Order: sequence, then structure tokens, then C-alpha cells
Amino acid sequence: MSKPKILKGMRDFFPGEMQRREYVLSLIKQVFKSYGFLPIETPAIEYWDILSGKYGDEEKLIYKFKDRGERDVGLRFDFTVPLARVISMHPEITMPFRRYQIQPVWRADKPQKGRMREFYQCDIDIVGTSSILADAEIISITSGIFEKLGFSAKGRSASGGKEFKIIVNNRKILSAICQYAGIESEKELEVCRTIDKVEKIGKDGVKEELEERGIRKECINNILSVLEINSIELLEKEISGFGDEGIKEMKELFSYLKYFEIPKQRVSFSLWLARGLDYYTGSIFETVVEKPRIGSLAGGGRFDKLIGKIGNKDIPAVGTTIGLERVITVMEEQNMFPSLEPQPKVLITQFDKSSLKYVFNIARDLRENGIETEVYPDFVKLSKQFRYARKRGIPYVVVAGPDEIRENKMTIKDMKSERQELVDRKGAIEWFKDNLPTVRQGGNNGL
Amino acid sequence: MSKPKILKGMRDFFPGEMQRREYVLSLIKQVFKSYGFLPIETPAIEYWDILSGKYGDEEKLIYKFKDRGERDVGLRFDFTVPLARVISMHPEITMPFRRYQIQPVWRADKPQKGRMREFYQCDIDIVGTSSILADAEIISITSGIFEKLGFSAKGRSASGGKEFKIIVNNRKILSAICQYAGIESEKELEVCRTIDKVEKIGKDGVKEELEERGIRKECINNILSVLEINSIELLEKEISGFGDEGIKEMKELFSYLKYFEIPKQRVSFSLWLARGLDYYTGSIFETVVEKPRIGSLAGGGRFDKLIGKIGNKDIPAVGTTIGLERVITVMEEQNMFPSLEPQPKVLITQFDKSSLKYVFNIARDLRENGIETEVYPDFVKLSKQFRYARKRGIPYVVVAGPDEIRENKMTIKDMKSERQELVDRKGAIEWFKDNLPTVRQGGNNGL
Repeated sequence: MSKPKILKGMRDFFPGEMQRREYVLSLIKQVFKSYGFLPIETPAIEYWDILSGKYGDEEKLIYKFKDRGERDVGLRFDFTVPLARVISMHPEITMPFRRYQIQPVWRADKPQKGRMREFYQCDIDIVGTSSILADAEIISITSGIFEKLGFSAKGRSASGGKEFKIIVNNRKILSAICQYAGIESEKELEVCRTIDKVEKIGKDGVKEELEERGIRKECINNILSVLEINSIELLEKEISGFGDEGIKEMKELFSYLKYFEIPKQRVSFSLWLARGLDYYTGSIFETVVEKPRIGSLAGGGRFDKLIGKIGNKDIPAVGTTIGLERVITVMEEQNMFPSLEPQPKVLITQFDKSSLKYVFNIARDLRENGIETEVYPDFVKLSKQFRYARKRGIPYVVVAGPDEIRENKMTIKDMKSERQELVDRKGAIEWFKDNLPTVRQGGNNGL
Repeated sequence: MSKPKILKGMRDFFPGEMQRREYVLSLIKQVFKSYGFLPIETPAIEYWDILSGKYGDEEKLIYKFKDRGERDVGLRFDFTVPLARVISMHPEITMPFRRYQIQPVWRADKPQKGRMREFYQCDIDIVGTSSILADAEIISITSGIFEKLGFSAKGRSASGGKEFKIIVNNRKILSAICQYAGIESEKELEVCRTIDKVEKIGKDGVKEELEERGIRKECINNILSVLEINSIELLEKEISGFGDEGIKEMKELFSYLKYFEIPKQRVSFSLWLARGLDYYTGSIFETVVEKPRIGSLAGGGRFDKLIGKIGNKDIPAVGTTIGLERVITVMEEQNMFPSLEPQPKVLITQFDKSSLKYVFNIARDLRENGIETEVYPDFVKLSKQFRYARKRGIPYVVVAGPDEIRENKMTIKDMKSERQELVDRKGAIEWFKDNLPTVRQGGNNGL
């Protein structure tokens, strides 16, 4: 058979990477829960009817296929559309409904840095309220999470170059600008999709693409000049009369943000922020870092019409997604991870069959006391077993041969200092509790 | 648009169900880790080449499709085959390698009780040792997990009808029996697949299917009579000379099990256990409960030839999978779940905009002290906000209107007792720590 391969844009995650993923996920979940969000999960596969017509240009990235019953289906592309399906199917859900969802999604995109074909998203949404307080809360949670992960001077592993920014805009404002610039309302979504690409293709690229999409030159010039305005007050003067609701929402949002103690310079307003997906209707936001250039780490917005598109009733909603892989990539490149505990803590070596009972009794004692313990499965030379522990990074090795058994003791070797000590079997738990400080605190918090 | 639907055999999981899932998963992970197993994850999609020819009759249940690049691919069907691919691609992995993997798998099976099309499996495997001690350890871990979940008199929520059994057999023994019965070795796998169905189709059904598969009548009679033998000693006499290795392994396995303190009656030997998948080569085992009848809750075995089939080098391995959904179904039907904490703990009501600052300050204080707190997002009547808290099962509601703010206090209502108390803002954390015992112990252990 040919050499075994993994698909491009997909990855295996090994224990060290998994530990970092679990570290980040557990912090994210902790913040989600602290704000009262509860988890849901949805299937990987959805009917094609549910997925189609929701994502604009990006629909072509959905893994679409026929299942074994010849039904048209697709793999989950995000959680917003499945959430809208869940809400439509379950009118009994108590509103406002705050849920989080952490699972993988799949996109048949061109793989590149920060762009995988399978990646985890961490979403929160508040469904059933049009209060802009909810928009502010979503931004506050995002800010709190990035702080906790060390992405700011207030965070714990502070150093240069990691400060993050949250950029906000509003689709209603973009819509008003389109009207002001003389663009037909059917073209608004296309214009948003094009503006969204500015980071990738530059302003000239946006101009070209708008031309290709058949927008008249004068309209393009109009819109591009308005997008350069960077103050809400100036914008308000410029486009007054073409819909003030977006500007009103934006002002309300900023007025609420101050209650969440987010540093002022962290949240800024940019008309160039558009978000590619079709379903946004109000506030939109993205979290970015200057270094490395990797696209946004989080993004979201208000989608008051999506649920009505799937069910028969509009229900307002707002939320955000955090891209786990990108966050981890940045944290790795910027050395933001704290040192995580070695796992397991102890390897017990094998001597011969006569010591098996003693060895497994020690193992059980340690495990019952929260000390992760591996027993070597083969009867091979001790030197080979020590070599294994060293390669694996297991900090302590226990030897329990006939001499130790006779005295009801064990030899514990500290693999780092190379020192070894003969310890009473009864005193072993205490010995490890003294030497592994985290055990005393009741385990390793699931990392 | 037509009524939104979810695919048959797939499910949405709501917060209450998620909490039970997380409870079970966190116990399972804790045991996996205590034995030194570390997590890996693999992609949902694999090349068809990797998946095909590994699962016998069940291959037709793989979700197979062409991806956007016209490659033949399939959705993950189990973790054993992806593990074999990982091992083949990464000769640098230190052996013995103990890994666990917890993710969903997909099978286009006929949906029925205990049989979903998307379900989570929890796998552990030890790769790189042929020591039967590893087989015994896998059985010991399985036993430990079911005990911890309350499936036995030793478990914590003990009551009748939940005692579980682990049934073991060995493929080498089945192979010897086939030879003894005069069945050609090319037919052995087919015979195993058929015997595996005995729970579903009964012994007569097995007989019929063996006939359909072209096995001669006398061979069928031979094999069925041997399968009834229920002692290793009698079997050894009967088939002596047709391969003793399986019997030797089985005896060794039972001799090791006693070191793991598993009650003797829990593990029993049955020749009728065959396991449907093609890749097993030695020990095989399944965990079952009498009630409800739902198929096996866990199953696994030794697969010493699978890795060589994918890479170019045989590496011995043994492991098991635990089926999360079936475990939860049994635990729900048998009322085995302890009462899990309500989440969130507190709802802070909204009064008007003038109290926003005060309200969000209280919320931040509570959250920073590990008390999950939701703030109602709309300025609506208090009675509506209380109704929301009641529906959601939030145990405490905080009111902070102008009167409370003036005195730097808040009113806390216990939704169960209906009592309310005026508490100093500074004393609120202490008040909740006294009333929510788990907060004092440092949060809710990620449930």
C-alpha cells in the first residue's frame, strides 16, 4: 500500500498540543460560564437546505455530499446557522437564551497559515433580545478572554507586541453608506463581501472587485471616500438623512462599553470592517493582533434576520466566535503559554513477575491520591525503562524490586536531579504530595 | 422554506444533557489520565485508502464522499484505524505509547435505541507492547471507570440491576476452533463476523448465516458445539493440538487480572464473543449490563497486525472504546446521575439605565469570585425577569434599584425558599460563599 497520508489542511494533535489546547479551552469555557452561558452541541452533518443561501460567496467552501440515503447534506461550516435551526425547531426554549458551542467546523479553503480545513470555533450567542447591552456584553466577554490568555498589559504574561484590538462597525451604517453612495440595495451584500477583503487584497483590490461586480465608478469613489472617515461624529454629518439607526446603535454600544471596564483604546470603530458572511444585520466586530499577521482571532455580530430565514419567525440575536487554532498559533509564536505540568507524574518500573502484586498496589495507591501513574508493561532491563521515562519527560521513577519489597519500601528517583531516595510505602503519598505541589491543591484542574 | 429538520440518527445536545455528558466525560478522562494516558485528536475526514479494507462488513456504513478536490474520502468511523495511520506516519513516537482519544465518529447505520449515526467514543490504546499485562490494564481501566460511574455495588450510587460484566475471549482461540471444526482459514473472519451477531439474531440465526456464507453443515455443527464450552480447561482438552497460543494468552490474562483487584465474578470468559471488526488478533472484550438491553457499553481487543497493514511495520497494540451515548442512556434510565449544580448561580435584574454601572460592578465582583452570574439584558418589568430566572432554574436573583444603590446594598432573593435579604455590597461574596457551598471549594470542577 502507498505511504499513509493525512489530508491537506487537517492535522493530528499530539499530547503536548492537546495540553495547550485544553489550557486555552478551559479558560475560554470558564469565562463563558461565568457570564451564564451554557453549552450546546449540534451534529457535524446538516441538511443542505439548512446550509445553503446563508454564507454568501463562502458557500462554495462547504463540504457538500450525498449521504448513504442519497440526501444532500453538508458538513458544519459555522455554529450560527445550526443555532438558528435549533431555535426554529424549539419554540419552547426560554429567551433570552445564552449558549456557547465549542466543536470543529470544516471549510474546503486553500490551506495556509491560520487557515485550516478543520478547525475549532468557540461561539457564544445571546438569542431573543435586541438590546445593545447584549452586543456590549459579547464584546466584554471577548475582551475578558483575551486578557485572561495574556494578550494585554493587564494580562498575566504581559510583554510587547501582543496587545489586541477589537474593531467594531455596524451593517446598518454600511447600508446607509451604500445608499448615500448611490448603490442599489440588492448590491449591498456584495459590497460588504468585497470590503471585507481589504486586508487581503488592499484598497485598490477592493476598488477593482467592486468594478467587476458592476458597481458604477462614481458610486465606488463615493463609497471609498466615506469609508476613510474615522469618527462617528464626522460620519453622522456626512451621511445624515441616509439612515441614522446604525449610528444610534453604535453610539449606544460605546456608551455601554464603559460599564464593562474595557480600556478605552482597546475598542475602535472602523468603517472598513464589513465581515464576509451575509447574515449580519447590526453591530459587527473583530479581534485582531498586530503580530503575527494571521487574520482576525475572533469575530461576530448581530444577526436579527437569520433565524426567521430558517424558521418562520424573526428572533434577534448577537454573538461571536473565537478561532481556537489562530489563538494558539499566536500564543505559541509569542511564547505566551505558561509552563504546563508534565503528565503522568510517575513511572513504576517492572522487575519480574514476583513483584507484580506489590507494583500494582503502589500504582493503585498513587492513582487514588490523584497522582497520575504509569506502570511499564514489559519485563525489560531497568536501563531501558529509565530511558523511556526520560524520553517521555516523566519526572519520577519508582523501583520496587525484591529488596524494596522485603522492607516494604520503594526507591523513588527524581529524573531531573538524578537523586534517589528510599521511601516507606506508607510514606510515599506524603512524599509525592511534598514534591508535586499541584497534587496538594487537588489535582491538575483538568489540564 | 420547508420546516427545518435535523438528520435522522443525529442529535442536538441541550445544556442539561451537556452537563451530564461533561460529568461522564470528566470522570472517564480522570481515570484515563490517572493511568498515564495522554490525549490525541485526529481529523474527521480521512483518505478512503486509509479507511477501506479495515472494517469488514461494516465498511458499507462509512460516510464516503468526494471532497471539493475530487479526492475519495470518508468520515472517521472509529479511532483505531486513524491511530494506526498516526503511528505509521510518526516512527519518532516513544513506545509504549498510551493515548486516549475522545471525539465523535459517524456511521450510516439504521438508527435505533443505542445506535446513533453520530456518537462519541472514548478510546484508550497501548501501542508498542505485546505484553498481556497491557491487555489486563485495559480491562482494569474499563472496570474502574464503570465503578466510578456507579455501575456496581462498589460504586457510589449502588442499587440493583446495574452490575456490569466484562466478557473476554481471544481471536486466536476462535481461529483454533475454526481449524478444529474444519473451516478454511480464509473463512475465519466471516465466521467471526457472523458469531458476533448472536445477540441480535440468536444461535439459529448464526447457523443460518454460516450456511449462507457457504460453510459446510458438519463444520457448522462442530463449531456451534465447541462454542458452548464455558471453561478454559474443558476447551483446552477439546481442541488441543489446534493452536494453544490463544488459550495460553487467556490464562495469562486471568492470572494478571487478580493484581488489579477486580471482583472475580465481574470478568467472564465466553467463546460466543467474537467482535465484528476485522482487525483484532488476540484478546477481545466487551462490557455489558443486563438492563436495559442496549448492546455493549464498551469493547475492544488486541490488534497486532493493523498498523503493519497501513504502514510497513507490524507494531502490537491493544485498547478499548467506551460508547458515551450508550453509557449515558443506561445511566439516565437507571437514575444513576447525582444531582448536578444549577448554572448559572445568580441573575442580576435590570432596573433602568441609571443603575447600569452599579449592576455591572456587582456582576464583575461575583464573576471574579467564581460565582457564575447573568445580567438580564432588557429593561422590562421585574416580574418578567423573575419569571425568567424561575424557568431557567437560576437559584438566586439580585435586585439593585435606586434604593439599594443609595445604601450600597443589594436585595438577594432565594428562588426556592422565596425569602429575600438585604445584603451589603461588600458582604455579598461572603453571603454567596455561605449559601453556595461549591464556590467555597473553588468552583465547579468544570461541570
